[in-house]
Amino acid sequence: MGLTIGVDIGGTKIAAGVVDEDGTILETYKVPTPPTPDGVTDAICAAVSEVSASHTIDAVGIGAAGYVDDKRATVLFAPNINWRHEPLKDKVEQRIGLPVVVENDANCAAWGEYRFGAGQGHEDVICITLGTGLGGGIIIGNKLRRGRFGVAAEFGHIRVVPDGLLCGCGSQGCWEQYASGRALVRYAKQRANATPENAVALLALGDGTPDGIEGKHISEAARAGDLVAIDSFRELARWAGAGLADLASLFDPSAFIVGGGVSDEGDLVLDPIRKSFKRWLIGGAWRPHAQVLAAQLGGKAGLVGAADLARQG
Amino acid sequence: MGLTIGVDIGGTKIAAGVVDEDGTILETYKVPTPPTPDGVTDAICAAVSEVSASHTIDAVGIGAAGYVDDKRATVLFAPNINWRHEPLKDKVEQRIGLPVVVENDANCAAWGEYRFGAGQGHEDVICITLGTGLGGGIIIGNKLRRGRFGVAAEFGHIRVVPDGLLCGCGSQGCWEQYASGRALVRYAKQRANATPENAVALLALGDGTPDGIEGKHISEAARAGDLVAIDSFRELARWAGAGLADLASLFDPSAFIVGGGVSDEGDLVLDPIRKSFKRWLIGGAWRPHAQVLAAQLGGKAGLVGAADLARQG
Amino acid sequence: MGLTIGVDIGGTKIAAGVVDEDGTILETYKVPTPPTPDGVTDAICAAVSEVSASHTIDAVGIGAAGYVDDKRATVLFAPNINWRHEPLKDKVEQRIGLPVVVENDANCAAWGEYRFGAGQGHEDVICITLGTGLGGGIIIGNKLRRGRFGVAAEFGHIRVVPDGLLCGCGSQGCWEQYASGRALVRYAKQRANATPENAVALLALGDGTPDGIEGKHISEAARAGDLVAIDSFRELARWAGAGLADLASLFDPSAFIVGGGVSDEGDLVLDPIRKSFKRWLIGGAWRPHAQVLAAQLGGKAGLVGAADLARQG
Amino acid sequence: MGLTIGVDIGGTKIAAGVVDEDGTILETYKVPTPPTPDGVTDAICAAVSEVSASHTIDAVGIGAAGYVDDKRATVLFAPNINWRHEPLKDKVEQRIGLPVVVENDANCAAWGEYRFGAGQGHEDVICITLGTGLGGGIIIGNKLRRGRFGVAAEFGHIRVVPDGLLCGCGSQGCWEQYASGRALVRYAKQRANATPENAVALLALGDGTPDGIEGKHISEAARAGDLVAIDSFRELARWAGAGLADLASLFDPSAFIVGGGVSDEGDLVLDPIRKSFKRWLIGGAWRPHAQVLAAQLGGKAGLVGAADLARQG
Repeated sequence: MGLTIGVDIGGTKIAAGVVDEDGTILETYKVPTPPTPDGVTDAICAAVSEVSASHTIDAVGIGAAGYVDDKRATVLFAPNINWRHEPLKDKVEQRIGLPVVVENDANCAAWGEYRFGAGQGHEDVICITLGTGLGGGIIIGNKLRRGRFGVAAEFGHIRVVPDGLLCGCGSQGCWEQYASGRALVRYAKQRANATPENAVALLALGDGTPDGIEGKHISEAARAGDLVAIDSFRELARWAGAGLADLASLFDPSAFIVGGGVSDEGDLVLDPIRKSFKRWLIGGAWRPHAQVLAAQLGGKAGLVGAADLARQG
Repeated sequence: MGLTIGVDIGGTKIAAGVVDEDGTILETYKVPTPPTPDGVTDAICAAVSEVSASHTIDAVGIGAAGYVDDKRATVLFAPNINWRHEPLKDKVEQRIGLPVVVENDANCAAWGEYRFGAGQGHEDVICITLGTGLGGGIIIGNKLRRGRFGVAAEFGHIRVVPDGLLCGCGSQGCWEQYASGRALVRYAKQRANATPENAVALLALGDGTPDGIEGKHISEAARAGDLVAIDSFRELARWAGAGLADLASLFDPSAFIVGGGVSDEGDLVLDPIRKSFKRWLIGGAWRPHAQVLAAQLGGKAGLVGAADLARQG
Repeated sequence: MGLTIGVDIGGTKIAAGVVDEDGTILETYKVPTPPTPDGVTDAICAAVSEVSASHTIDAVGIGAAGYVDDKRATVLFAPNINWRHEPLKDKVEQRIGLPVVVENDANCAAWGEYRFGAGQGHEDVICITLGTGLGGGIIIGNKLRRGRFGVAAEFGHIRVVPDGLLCGCGSQGCWEQYASGRALVRYAKQRANATPENAVALLALGDGTPDGIEGKHISEAARAGDLVAIDSFRELARWAGAGLADLASLFDPSAFIVGGGVSDEGDLVLDPIRKSFKRWLIGGAWRPHAQVLAAQLGGKAGLVGAADLARQG
Repeated sequence: MGLTIGVDIGGTKIAAGVVDEDGTILETYKVPTPPTPDGVTDAICAAVSEVSASHTIDAVGIGAAGYVDDKRATVLFAPNINWRHEPLKDKVEQRIGLPVVVENDANCAAWGEYRFGAGQGHEDVICITLGTGLGGGIIIGNKLRRGRFGVAAEFGHIRVVPDGLLCGCGSQGCWEQYASGRALVRYAKQRANATPENAVALLALGDGTPDGIEGKHISEAARAGDLVAIDSFRELARWAGAGLADLASLFDPSAFIVGGGVSDEGDLVLDPIRKSFKRWLIGGAWRPHAQVLAAQLGGKAGLVGAADLARQG
């Protein structure tokens, strides 16, 4: 098979890219994400048409945030786009005349990292994506594992605190409420509010108040030694590492890959996560330890992964 | 392949059984579990020799509680038997002259149920064993999934309560401290102690004190309408069902199989677990639900599964 | 001393009442709660003037939601009215020419119940108010205990779940997130969403959806046997009773009084709370148990208590 | 009144001391703690006789670990000594011919610190004792507050983690399981087990294994910069400070006094507790903060306090 297209549906932009069999992106086209469900479908088709004009394309892979069914055809539930049982594969295939594979976006990113990023050479890899929320993907035996009904690997919604924080999903205590970019900002705001004297550098980067703290401020302040910022990363790592230890008990992979915006900070966040993982790993003295690796493809993992999944057919 | 032998190493007895390709046990032999590590190996060999005398055996599968390595040869860590990096496969093969496969006992039970019990017809099944502790096994795509290093599916030790109950593994808040036969007895004792007026039937079955409560009393009292006994099962189900909901978020199987001594009570415990599972399942309105099934093979699942895994090679 | 006035500042109405030494309300006047801080002060003075016209008044007691200082003069922090270090006593005294006592509203309600309601005859009483949130008051040795700085008895904000639900106060896991009218509605909505088949009666009382559930529906449905409604009360009681057990460990009163809108349901909510209290009481076999009593004065407790505190001087 | 005797019943020794009205101990006598309940009573009488020989004594105060009734006469329940409804006051008075006051030992220590130690000048003080477990005492309005039935201030057994660690009292998640000398050792053992490379100094002080870690090692290693030791104190402080914040919400004292063996380490443990207290204090920006003070009387607080309570009559 030759070239395929990967589509990444983000909150603000939809990106379509032509990808070759080595995972290299040859051309990309982006459009703003429309506000309506049908508008998103239109935009996907338009972006695909745009980038396919000057290439011979064999198939298209689309990554969508939400539940995708076992046939990789229907989006069962996409909270952000308001798709409910949306037959996205059929709709797009009819419009563009190419085979289409629909997949959960975090699964796409996991597959991208497994094939062309930090996961190369591993047969059993668990990826987590620490973005606004927490997503993930499971590779076992060199295959993406989607579950019987297509909705596996919803890592962000395992319960890590009974009766814990309310989650957008309606449940309480979900992992993504404790390990995600949004959680990091909450940690910093709470701490800056309680002990502003330890957050002088952090507060100076925003509007001077805890409410004005943003994620980028926390990274910058942590590098400058701000105590609240450092402690906020430590708290994030406490929960991320403990969750990885649980995933090790369940999946026992050879590697974890940590991606998403939070992981852009590299060892600033990876090292505390590694320490926490080791702290909470069960039976650590009697078993080989999985590596905890930083993702390598950044924001392109989803698009590249979607294209490659389409190639695999 | 013809007949194989399955070995089940229990706390009090070691059982070896000759099993055919349909999962039928043709002959069984049991010996008391010796107190020393080497004694256990001796007893395994003796039991295998005993049952293999009048059959033509092709291979032997041994189920052991603990970590078994990726080659299914070495027991890395068996807390009960005090094996540490024990080359069990080599030792037994040298003694009995047959190919040996070593596997975690809960994995064996899961495989047994998948092949010949409640899991037949399912490709993706998660089994949990509610015995004294909580064990489990993962079947995805018709294969037992053992992890990269052989120690996957340690369900009992995922953390369900941060800073929770101390576990024998050294960690805190492990699932098996909340969902297991031992947990059930603790629930009943605590409740009988606080409100003995609601545990009259339950207390009458033992020595009259909360300390005298045993697992079998709780089942019997629950069937008789004892409030504390019923509430103890409900508490167990609360934790078991919430954990299954987490496993659904992770694995999305078509079925869960609940085995182990606690599950012998059938719908007395299964129905509350199903309710709790439904209560905690994330996105339940937008996805197919896994079935929650009672195991069918009872205490034989491990032996039958071990024999069949040996057959598969 | 003769007559005094009690003022109750509610979210929608401000009530002033003339109260005699037996706690009887002789006359009441209500005005809508103005939207601005100064408007509230104006309304208080107006209402006091109105009811004092035809009586000889010796003093005025004002109950306010928030922190009131050790001199019972300044409202340090009132989240709803947006008072910050507001010298309410001075302002009102200057305007109405009568001695004024300012007190936390839950303290007023506790005092009212202690003097004229369920707490009569007890020297050591702890009151909790299950309204939208959870407030409380402490009577030890026949005296209202306000703490060194005036802000004691903030029961609603003790932490009952580490890393638990976000609270309006900025902290997490506060008791009022688990035991209050708002919590009750959350319990019902979550359960009706997960298992609508068990909430048929409950859902029929609102708009048919979980989001349409209101507190009054839950009471009515519970009386009709609706499973989700009953279970929601049970969950509320689980947290309320466990918290009372903690307060027993700390204060060891002879009685708890449970007031607020939730307690209007009487034994529907009180009985489960009593059971839960007994379940969680530490050392229950070796100590006398505090009674758990329903409040008797309903919504008038705060006004009557404020008036009586003014009388005490 | 002249001199009084205070008696401190410890796990290994019983100490009786003659104390003057300034809290000065004039003479002390110690005997090993006998293993039987009656033996303890005998030893108390013997020790009192010994120290009273050369002084004129007006009364005797006895501090006992356990529930003491509202008359300060009967030990309702003493888990360590196996007293159940023991009429200790009557028994000792009959034998020694002096007025006797029995009081909970942590109450005695709190009173000692309030009168002659860190609490001087405060009217409202909460004391916590971080020893093997966690005890406490409440002074409000210059009086020791014992509750209606005598068993108030059982701080160690408020529930800080639902479904948390099993406690000797039969309940789960009690504060003393997270903030006490025993908890500190558990923290260090768990961390040294998971990450021995961070506990080199700590492990070298014992037998080289996590199991050999003792409390004194942790202090010494923390001062030497051992990461696991420092982190163990930080974890202790996390729970101690959060609990003090809860007590501030409830009692709003002007000072907390932290005593017990753990507090002997001074600022090594007090500073992290202060930070944690500030982190978790509700509404910290809008209220005066209680001071967190180190106890001053060390192990003598209980004896001195018992003697002074006897003097007060």
